[in-house]
Amino acid sequence: MASELRTVLVVGTGLIGTSIALALRERGLRVLLADHDQGAVRLARELGAGEEWHPETHAQAASASGESGESGETIDLAVLAVPPALVAGELLALQRNGTATFYTDVASVKVEPIERAAQLGCDMSTYVASHPLAGREKSGPGAARAELFLGRPWALCPTPDATPEARAAVLRLVELCGGNPVEVDAAEHDQAVAVVSHAPHVTASAVAARLADASDVALGLAGQGVRDVTRIAGSDPGLWLGILSGNATPVAEVLEAISRDLAEAATALRALADGDGTVTQEITQLLKRGVAGHGRIPGKHGGPAPAYVVVQVVVGDRPGQLARLFQICDEVGVNVEDVRLEHAPGLPLGIAEVSVQPDAAAVLTKALHERGWQVP
Amino acid sequence: MASELRTVLVVGTGLIGTSIALALRERGLRVLLADHDQGAVRLARELGAGEEWHPETHAQAASASGESGESGETIDLAVLAVPPALVAGELLALQRNGTATFYTDVASVKVEPIERAAQLGCDMSTYVASHPLAGREKSGPGAARAELFLGRPWALCPTPDATPEARAAVLRLVELCGGNPVEVDAAEHDQAVAVVSHAPHVTASAVAARLADASDVALGLAGQGVRDVTRIAGSDPGLWLGILSGNATPVAEVLEAISRDLAEAATALRALADGDGTVTQEITQLLKRGVAGHGRIPGKHGGPAPAYVVVQVVVGDRPGQLARLFQICDEVGVNVEDVRLEHAPGLPLGIAEVSVQPDAAAVLTKALHERGWQVP
Repeated sequence: MASELRTVLVVGTGLIGTSIALALRERGLRVLLADHDQGAVRLARELGAGEEWHPETHAQAASASGESGESGETIDLAVLAVPPALVAGELLALQRNGTATFYTDVASVKVEPIERAAQLGCDMSTYVASHPLAGREKSGPGAARAELFLGRPWALCPTPDATPEARAAVLRLVELCGGNPVEVDAAEHDQAVAVVSHAPHVTASAVAARLADASDVALGLAGQGVRDVTRIAGSDPGLWLGILSGNATPVAEVLEAISRDLAEAATALRALADGDGTVTQEITQLLKRGVAGHGRIPGKHGGPAPAYVVVQVVVGDRPGQLARLFQICDEVGVNVEDVRLEHAPGLPLGIAEVSVQPDAAAVLTKALHERGWQVP
Repeated sequence: MASELRTVLVVGTGLIGTSIALALRERGLRVLLADHDQGAVRLARELGAGEEWHPETHAQAASASGESGESGETIDLAVLAVPPALVAGELLALQRNGTATFYTDVASVKVEPIERAAQLGCDMSTYVASHPLAGREKSGPGAARAELFLGRPWALCPTPDATPEARAAVLRLVELCGGNPVEVDAAEHDQAVAVVSHAPHVTASAVAARLADASDVALGLAGQGVRDVTRIAGSDPGLWLGILSGNATPVAEVLEAISRDLAEAATALRALADGDGTVTQEITQLLKRGVAGHGRIPGKHGGPAPAYVVVQVVVGDRPGQLARLFQICDEVGVNVEDVRLEHAPGLPLGIAEVSVQPDAAAVLTKALHERGWQVP
């Protein structure tokens, strides 16, 4: 069996499922859509993600065309884009009906769905669990986009029972979506995402929870730092309960370590307030470990974070300012690696922080100065 | 005594001190600069922040011109931009020499410097403690900019001993720097910044510290969420030890609350892993409190965060793309409220997330579509 995919069934038309469907449609595949929420399927269809799947009609068509399943109605791959706890049950139901040739899921946790699927008696030879490391604060088909997976890691966790053909089919899915396939053991995957995603999320919630009880004065003194730390705390609690529940033990381990570090920092600060200067070393050590960990996060092109130089420019909060700024970058041949707008609360202006290659900073600064821009 | 300032002495030419000096220079004031680090003073001077202060020369000139101190050499205000622990000592030394008419400091904590100044016998009638809520990850005079304080809150914590003239002088400093003065009790200030700045910083360090020991696989799966949560963890540990030490008890209280929340979440997750489904409510509650707290952070113009709509556009990672994008915004009269570049690791393209007013989103999307841009 070739690994080429022609027809893919996406079960669950939320953010991830619909984004996969859109990516496959762009590559010319036939995509069938299913979801318990009829409104979600309809919206996904209207967005061009594919056509609604009608299992009965499909089964009749396949049966009418012969038992080999090689008619145009053959579903090569079924993608289960449902909450982690529902993966195994859906897989079993689809397999019992002989729905597709191969199966994958895209849940954020991997050990639990795989173990439950084996327990339920699913056919593990046609199933390869996977997880695209892509997401947004927003959810639902309306937030979907075909480009969601471009260049992002996509974990593949095949069990020893999976056939080479099943692995090839899921690998092809990742390629068609533009993802970067990473084969990894399911347990190692779950520990990794506990550290880089799940525990940071809960921690951001705990920091943001303090703001719920804080005084208006305190909120009025909030700056960019706390905004960044708590950004992901705005996400859907129901969705995240499902993710955390499916990866409970690894997340608990990381949260315990963070909790312990914070409790020790608090103890050291209280000792310091009581005049014990010997504890400053402990606080410094935590801050230094933070700097070291921060420095290990890879840069945008997969390698270590490059040392871009930030050029700051004062911009007005009105149309045209940014256009002119980037026009100048263009004119002098400077590539903008990143941009961040820092607003001045209460005033109609702000600072654009434009990240550029080190050798381009002087060029850009000079060009902006010459054109009368304020470059502090 | 009028509150007009003509000559200001800035002691400590780091990021904050030099930024204040630059702002005052732009308003035409005479600025004198001092720092134990001669290189820092020199750099600040070369950046146009003012002239080096030579106390001996100054004292002679003032004395030669008569004892009234009303010559051109009179220093109207001395700004102490030194670490919190050094504020009181510097204040005492300057006051003993009759250096300036009024005094302020700009340290990130307020109770400790004020209490120590009173204990040391400083003249509290001419001193008004303050704290501009502005900063950057980078430090030193090279990172300074006159616009740092534009529209940002600037806390003023006068004691009952401070004269109306002293308060007026420091208020005038805030106005000249473009800051937004907020009079607040010193203890309330310290509790507020513990919640919105100091404890979030330590928490970001604790999350980042986990990355220091994580596997390469885990780092390879890092997404935008953990990047945002840990951004401020890259800051200078020495600087932050000084800030945390000066606000030890309020920060310890907030860290204890966060640590407790995380320990309870870990306990609930372990119970869940053991099959106790009754604990999901606890986890959901923490996530919901996080959403509530996140929603209280004010938007860029001081009010509640406005409901901007994000228009996503696929852009190439090469010069000219952003210029053309913002040119189109300009052409169709759409004001860009914020912009964020999301890069696709390993691929030369990314997504520009352009925040606009709700009624402008459709206009912009249509205009981009018509011009052949990919708007998912």
